[in-house]
Amino acid sequence: MEKMKRPTVGFVGTGVMGEPMAAHLLDAGYPLVVFNRTRSRADSLVSRGARWASSAGEVAAASDIVITIVGYPHDVEECYLGEGGIIERAREGALLVDMTTSTPSLAVRIASAAAKRGLRALDAPVSGGDVGAREARLTIMVGGDEDAFKEAEPLFSAMGKTWTLAGGPGAGQHTKMANQIAIAGSMLGAVEAFAYARAAGLDLKTTLDAISAGAAGSFSMSTYVPRIISGDLAPGFYVKHFIKDLSIAIDEATGLGIDLPGLALATQLYERLAEKDGAELGTQALWLLYP
Amino acid sequence: MEKMKRPTVGFVGTGVMGEPMAAHLLDAGYPLVVFNRTRSRADSLVSRGARWASSAGEVAAASDIVITIVGYPHDVEECYLGEGGIIERAREGALLVDMTTSTPSLAVRIASAAAKRGLRALDAPVSGGDVGAREARLTIMVGGDEDAFKEAEPLFSAMGKTWTLAGGPGAGQHTKMANQIAIAGSMLGAVEAFAYARAAGLDLKTTLDAISAGAAGSFSMSTYVPRIISGDLAPGFYVKHFIKDLSIAIDEATGLGIDLPGLALATQLYERLAEKDGAELGTQALWLLYP
Repeated sequence: MEKMKRPTVGFVGTGVMGEPMAAHLLDAGYPLVVFNRTRSRADSLVSRGARWASSAGEVAAASDIVITIVGYPHDVEECYLGEGGIIERAREGALLVDMTTSTPSLAVRIASAAAKRGLRALDAPVSGGDVGAREARLTIMVGGDEDAFKEAEPLFSAMGKTWTLAGGPGAGQHTKMANQIAIAGSMLGAVEAFAYARAAGLDLKTTLDAISAGAAGSFSMSTYVPRIISGDLAPGFYVKHFIKDLSIAIDEATGLGIDLPGLALATQLYERLAEKDGAELGTQALWLLYP
Repeated sequence: MEKMKRPTVGFVGTGVMGEPMAAHLLDAGYPLVVFNRTRSRADSLVSRGARWASSAGEVAAASDIVITIVGYPHDVEECYLGEGGIIERAREGALLVDMTTSTPSLAVRIASAAAKRGLRALDAPVSGGDVGAREARLTIMVGGDEDAFKEAEPLFSAMGKTWTLAGGPGAGQHTKMANQIAIAGSMLGAVEAFAYARAAGLDLKTTLDAISAGAAGSFSMSTYVPRIISGDLAPGFYVKHFIKDLSIAIDEATGLGIDLPGLALATQLYERLAEKDGAELGTQALWLLYP
């Protein structure tokens, strides 16, 4: 079969999520240009044929489609809107896809700045954690223009299991916030359920088998309680990043004039966990608050 | 094929859960004797061949196996330990199975009183709601003796999808408490996620499709958010019964010396909902607290 010509994809941010996502794009045959703040974390991609670039702007100058998945909203802002950044240096007509979990308002600003230069921008945060990234089973929540969404779909299909156009610019981020709010509740419920079970003298594995397939079941329980039982509190998804997400959600909810006491409680508990040296652990380490 | 001789099953409590559960036993060929406080709610079972008895004790006197699923712990106590009740009137060697969600300590007392009369008792509360009961897909969490558990398994298989022996007397109730604590969290998370989504102007159906299969997913979200979206707040599982369960869980947790702030918050919110005339609605009516 004739091999289709693939657009060159620039990938900024090759951490615990970005590295396996970029690897799936290499597997799918896309020429890749990569940049990461810590260069060593891009080594395996470079050894597999990805080209190194020295900044996000350099990546943009060399790519048809630019994907970013970096840390915090201020990192996103700097990558896109900073001097010599992606918006300034992107090729004519390029498609920009920010997959970082960031603020809806920043997504709107980037889309607007992109449009002024004739570029297309999508906000496309993901859910599914490290396992989802490695297994190409991410949930991708997208905000932006339908044509741009369609152009990005082959890339989404290489990295994810589900991708949904949720609305205009920022709608992907809003959907991700809804996603994180739901996780905050299900994780809190799962952790407290098993803290109770342990205190009541139940066998935790038997309890998990008994309840995880029924009305108490959740992705949080099925994925993270086995790790808790086996004493594995490693990230997966970092506590510090979850706190970032929940803080954005609280700010947004406040701005929208709604009170979400479950979200507020979960955020307080995760902040307490971070104060107790839990910031670098995985989200299932909430367990440590229930001694 | 030759039809196996089935033991006669007594069934006490033919409400929104018990009625379809008893119907599955009729379907499976068990001779049935039934009692319910409100007689009319047993009419359909009687019209299909179940025999009516005039009290829980009368049911026990006529049955090899007695199943109860009634309202509150004090109802369970009266059925089993009251004058002329099940323990007093049960046939020699009978198997008693309480499927009500009740307190672990009462389950232990019933098992002990049963043993003194040479009877066997299981605590076997269920999860899965009205849909699970109708579709014979309940999760059944069992405490008691292994031989008694094995004898009850054919009945569990007629009513449920999963049944697990969690430990000795009371362990089924403790497992159910863990189950309810997990549901409290996942329901709170799901409801707040969609309250946020609505406030952010997202389409709720699109949001559900985008996030329910991923890391934010839960039985609560998949089962109850579609009802919320369609404006259906009918029970399913009554708010008043959920408050009962959560209150037992809080009492037990207190007795076990553990602090579960997520459970405490969910209980407060459901109590607030009940004060606002929500007691007779389904648990998804938590939505009404997020106007």
